[in-house]
Amino acid sequence: MIKNDIFLRVLQGQKVARPPVWMMRQAGRILPQYRNLRASLSGFKELVTTPSLAAEVTVQPVDELGVDAAILFSDILVIPEAMGLGYEMEERKGPSFPRVVSNEADVADLLEGDEAATYLDYVYEAVKLTKKLLEERVPLIGFSGAPWTLLAYMTEGGGSKTFSKAKKFLYTQPELAHLLLDKLANTIIAYLNKKIAAGVDAVQVFDSWAGILSPAQYREFSLPYIKKICDEVQGVPKIVFAKDGWFALPELASLDCQAIGLDWTVPPRLGREWVGPHKVLQGNLDPCALYAPASKIRLATEQMILDFQSNHIVNLGHGLYPDTPLDNVKCFVDSVKNFR
Amino acid sequence: MIKNDIFLRVLQGQKVARPPVWMMRQAGRILPQYRNLRASLSGFKELVTTPSLAAEVTVQPVDELGVDAAILFSDILVIPEAMGLGYEMEERKGPSFPRVVSNEADVADLLEGDEAATYLDYVYEAVKLTKKLLEERVPLIGFSGAPWTLLAYMTEGGGSKTFSKAKKFLYTQPELAHLLLDKLANTIIAYLNKKIAAGVDAVQVFDSWAGILSPAQYREFSLPYIKKICDEVQGVPKIVFAKDGWFALPELASLDCQAIGLDWTVPPRLGREWVGPHKVLQGNLDPCALYAPASKIRLATEQMILDFQSNHIVNLGHGLYPDTPLDNVKCFVDSVKNFR
Repeated sequence: MIKNDIFLRVLQGQKVARPPVWMMRQAGRILPQYRNLRASLSGFKELVTTPSLAAEVTVQPVDELGVDAAILFSDILVIPEAMGLGYEMEERKGPSFPRVVSNEADVADLLEGDEAATYLDYVYEAVKLTKKLLEERVPLIGFSGAPWTLLAYMTEGGGSKTFSKAKKFLYTQPELAHLLLDKLANTIIAYLNKKIAAGVDAVQVFDSWAGILSPAQYREFSLPYIKKICDEVQGVPKIVFAKDGWFALPELASLDCQAIGLDWTVPPRLGREWVGPHKVLQGNLDPCALYAPASKIRLATEQMILDFQSNHIVNLGHGLYPDTPLDNVKCFVDSVKNFR
Repeated sequence: MIKNDIFLRVLQGQKVARPPVWMMRQAGRILPQYRNLRASLSGFKELVTTPSLAAEVTVQPVDELGVDAAILFSDILVIPEAMGLGYEMEERKGPSFPRVVSNEADVADLLEGDEAATYLDYVYEAVKLTKKLLEERVPLIGFSGAPWTLLAYMTEGGGSKTFSKAKKFLYTQPELAHLLLDKLANTIIAYLNKKIAAGVDAVQVFDSWAGILSPAQYREFSLPYIKKICDEVQGVPKIVFAKDGWFALPELASLDCQAIGLDWTVPPRLGREWVGPHKVLQGNLDPCALYAPASKIRLATEQMILDFQSNHIVNLGHGLYPDTPLDNVKCFVDSVKNFR
């Protein structure tokens, strides 16, 4: 029995005294404990692939910030890697792929489903260790990138402002794109189901690059694959976050999931109008609002809670930025926990 | 008398047989004529600051593509430079500022209004030369960055995915931000009025980074300054393009301008609903759609024209990407010109 289960109770549709709070990227560079550990390691990937270390940094924000849920420390790019396309992570530069996917042979070479997901045993082991370290204090969230977002990195070769190579792939090789998206979806399904078997209490799908597609492209190349994932991953509550995907919110509302994440550009009342009354909304303070003085952070957080009214999980509208002052992060969390 | 004045007639509210078409960044790397000229020069800034060269590349897409309007070849960062904050432009890396604005003294040091705009005589000279070269074939558009977008570069120091330093500036030094935004608006007003005096037939204000602000921040830090510009720049039609600023469209609709640009994430009918019946809408094909085969480009362009119905200027939803095949660009333009 999880002691603080406010996060799960909201996802089950129960009324709670105040909304639960957690933050995307809460495990990471804002915490001195994380920076100390990270400095002793060879790189980011050592942290991701060593279960005891991943578990340790996953629990740090629960100890230090008092958030209502933990989210497993990992990376969305473990999926392409398990399928056979390795990534590198350079400090301050972000991820890159030495090889990219560009033709039929590249797609054919990729493993999929259980066969790929088996390579991620270190993740399932990290889930088990984290659950032990958490001692049932709060629930643990597992996550995956959405198929379109992973395809974007795999075809572009890394981060990009426009992802024009990835979009070119959709426009010029749509059938191959669908093949790759299906392989990705099958792998994500196997991966999330294994994470659930290992003990996660909820899952979140991140479609980080939703907002660079046109509504028509999103409808063709992203939504059907997120739908497949939502249909085939069962047993725990599911959250879908399509960053900058405001135009798809009415369609995301029909997915088999319990919550929809919103970025900070979507006014809470408009988000509720588009998503309808039945799903929980998660979000959506601008991460940069945490640069402001404490009094302003408190005010903005309280206003957001009032705007969402109910069926709400407090979060930021995107991951925490690494240079956010720790006290400001604490002020955000405390503003939610003290909300009456 | 301008021979092909279809662009201006739409902006005056007249009915036309088919919508006019031009493209943001139509003067540039997609044209072999541009690449040849550019290869013979020391850098991008030589092209921007030499009136005869800027005029030459401005007219190239009229000759080569048959677009219905020319837009002066220049850069939005000439304004900070004229105010005293010089920028550099590195090939494939984008703009950067060796010095950034971070405190009161930095803002106090900047020139503003006519005093700054006077430093941009090379632009007004380029307008005059371009008008000569155009020989009244099509109208000439002048442009400026919006105050928020220019502040973003001046405080961030260059391009960024998050512009978190720029947003931190707004959250931590809001009064100083307002001072800077006002200086920028005053300079832009002087600049656009001088461009109009030199002969441009319309102006466009680019708020390229609208979409990274929350609706509340956009309302505080961007809209009032675009409003000031629209109020104080008179005599030619005005177009305002707030990229990714979907949430601000109902408010942009009340500006004293004739047209609103839309990016490719906004479905035309929703854009019309938000902007209302009185303004021209400009846009909004995904620039990446021009990577597709000709038959698909034609179909997508025709569908877009049908979706917008009337009061529409055809454009892309963002600037042309430099690696777009020239034939595909021609196919886009021809699809509009052959539309019945």
